[in-house]
Amino acid sequence: MDKIMICIIGSGNWATTIARNVGRNVLNSQTLDEKVPMYVYEEIVEGRKLTEIINTTHINSKYMPNFELPPNIVAVDDIVTTARDADIIIFAIPPTFVSSCCKTLLGKVKPTAHAVSLIKGFERGDDGQFVLISQIIMRQLKIPCSVLVGCNLAHELAHDHFAEGTVGCRDQKYYRVLHDIFKSPTFRVVVTEDADCVEICSTLRNIIAFAAGCSDGMELNENTKGGIIRRGFLEMLQFVDVFYPGCRMGTFFESCGISDLVTSCYANRNRKLAEAFVKTGKPLSELEHILIPGHEPLGPVTAELVHHMLKKKGLEDKFPLFTTVYRICTGDYPLQRLVETLIKAREDIFHPLHTFQL
Amino acid sequence: MDKIMICIIGSGNWATTIARNVGRNVLNSQTLDEKVPMYVYEEIVEGRKLTEIINTTHINSKYMPNFELPPNIVAVDDIVTTARDADIIIFAIPPTFVSSCCKTLLGKVKPTAHAVSLIKGFERGDDGQFVLISQIIMRQLKIPCSVLVGCNLAHELAHDHFAEGTVGCRDQKYYRVLHDIFKSPTFRVVVTEDADCVEICSTLRNIIAFAAGCSDGMELNENTKGGIIRRGFLEMLQFVDVFYPGCRMGTFFESCGISDLVTSCYANRNRKLAEAFVKTGKPLSELEHILIPGHEPLGPVTAELVHHMLKKKGLEDKFPLFTTVYRICTGDYPLQRLVETLIKAREDIFHPLHTFQL
Repeated sequence: MDKIMICIIGSGNWATTIARNVGRNVLNSQTLDEKVPMYVYEEIVEGRKLTEIINTTHINSKYMPNFELPPNIVAVDDIVTTARDADIIIFAIPPTFVSSCCKTLLGKVKPTAHAVSLIKGFERGDDGQFVLISQIIMRQLKIPCSVLVGCNLAHELAHDHFAEGTVGCRDQKYYRVLHDIFKSPTFRVVVTEDADCVEICSTLRNIIAFAAGCSDGMELNENTKGGIIRRGFLEMLQFVDVFYPGCRMGTFFESCGISDLVTSCYANRNRKLAEAFVKTGKPLSELEHILIPGHEPLGPVTAELVHHMLKKKGLEDKFPLFTTVYRICTGDYPLQRLVETLIKAREDIFHPLHTFQL
Repeated sequence: MDKIMICIIGSGNWATTIARNVGRNVLNSQTLDEKVPMYVYEEIVEGRKLTEIINTTHINSKYMPNFELPPNIVAVDDIVTTARDADIIIFAIPPTFVSSCCKTLLGKVKPTAHAVSLIKGFERGDDGQFVLISQIIMRQLKIPCSVLVGCNLAHELAHDHFAEGTVGCRDQKYYRVLHDIFKSPTFRVVVTEDADCVEICSTLRNIIAFAAGCSDGMELNENTKGGIIRRGFLEMLQFVDVFYPGCRMGTFFESCGISDLVTSCYANRNRKLAEAFVKTGKPLSELEHILIPGHEPLGPVTAELVHHMLKKKGLEDKFPLFTTVYRICTGDYPLQRLVETLIKAREDIFHPLHTFQL
């Protein structure tokens, strides 16, 4: 039987970090091909081609200069050559490049290939709904697409610090393989079939991290942050229940749910963006450039799209935290409204028999 | 109809803080008696009786010197006089005094009275199981006992910072009343009938906060803390499922569950104790006295009792975080075992169809 071939599309720090795990893991397998092509957008770095640097020094000197790649990771400057023979195509590129990559690859990959998206973010659909990145890949490339979510801090994983990841896998055949290629001795990977839920959780948490950052910017207390996390977790559950029915509660207890939420509320850049937003009083449009060059501020952008979806269904009142974050970002609500929201949320639902109904 | 009379047993900072809320709230009610007796263990403070100071200055100069009590809170130096006519008896005393108070009060309170415990902690039963404080009160005083859990930081509540509390109420008749007497404009109170779950959650979280403190002491990363919180939350759910069947999942989404857990892992004294335990290398028995004068270190003590219960049922392996905390406290495991536990936990349960089964 032919060995399963894996390729990686992308060469940023997250792509490179995960390439280290994949490159090492395939060497320990009887069923996986040793060679892992990695598509590298060609750049000249200190007078040399980046692909050449990677293939001779095994260091991605542009995006991950302090870490060595296993020599079986082979940089390729052509995306079709990279993906042509692959059975598993791992996408780790900025969301804005997804469509053009898929267009280039359409009809040029194995019809049996399986994609895995490591891409954070989403697109707006024509109907005003979220379009998840994995859905874009599936629609455009006509192959199934799983997702790997978790570990926002690439360098922590690269340094072999503990991290967790959740794979939402859309083909039973790949449950074990995707687990085995991503994990490392310090990177705990769990696989579930609940792929939509995994991906949407990792998107929604940015709204809550933004709220947590506002709380930090206002120098509120720990109980307020705890209240934001609790309320946000409930609204995540409810949102998925309304818009992605069929998802499972258990997925929220995986790292894509509760742990990514908590760590984001204490450490991610949406939190930092919100803190700066409150402390400087500057509009978000100015701060984006300071804090996240080249990226949309995921918290506010997600809040906007979520708000649009809730409004269409007349559900704004049932999602007071999401609504409040959106309106704080637009300037319609003062910051103080955040605490009011926590106090008043569901106060009307006095529910001795069922404290929580999804 | 006679008005409902409330009394408070205790005069420490948590008792005094909650007395401020109760004292104010009864004034806004048609059905509650205005006068709220508060049992104060008599002490001489700067040459005057503490009861006399409270009743003339309306300040508990010993335990809460910077906050005024409403004048309808009346300090009483005799516990029977305090509770005799009360319909709702609020207990806010150290756990070691519960039994003696109940013995003194037995037969001296209204047979229709309803108790509410604000006491943190538990006792060891003869069978090696937890005995919850509310169960001790019910057993000894022969009246139902509800619980109020949440807001560990009395001074934050006193300063009107946001906080949440959960009431586990054992009599439907008191759902609304207990909500109304404890709440304040910044203290959000939710009532549920799931009283056992409310109380046990607030106990178990101390084990997890201790683990979080170990992680801080070892200067591990945010992902590790997120992993501890996630794993701990799962073990809380599982523990309740095994030992307190019939509790509801929704209760874990109230403040007694997820928010108290998160805030404890970032801010409570078990976390701090564990951090000192790791950083100083001193045995817990020395640090207790430094950090929590007069109190048992709840994290280690809870871990010990939980371990005993799990061992009896042969379930240690199913609760790897709880077991690891216990064994770190006893010195059987090195600290490094904490991260190993997170990595290995449930790795054996490779469960693509159900990521979480309770």
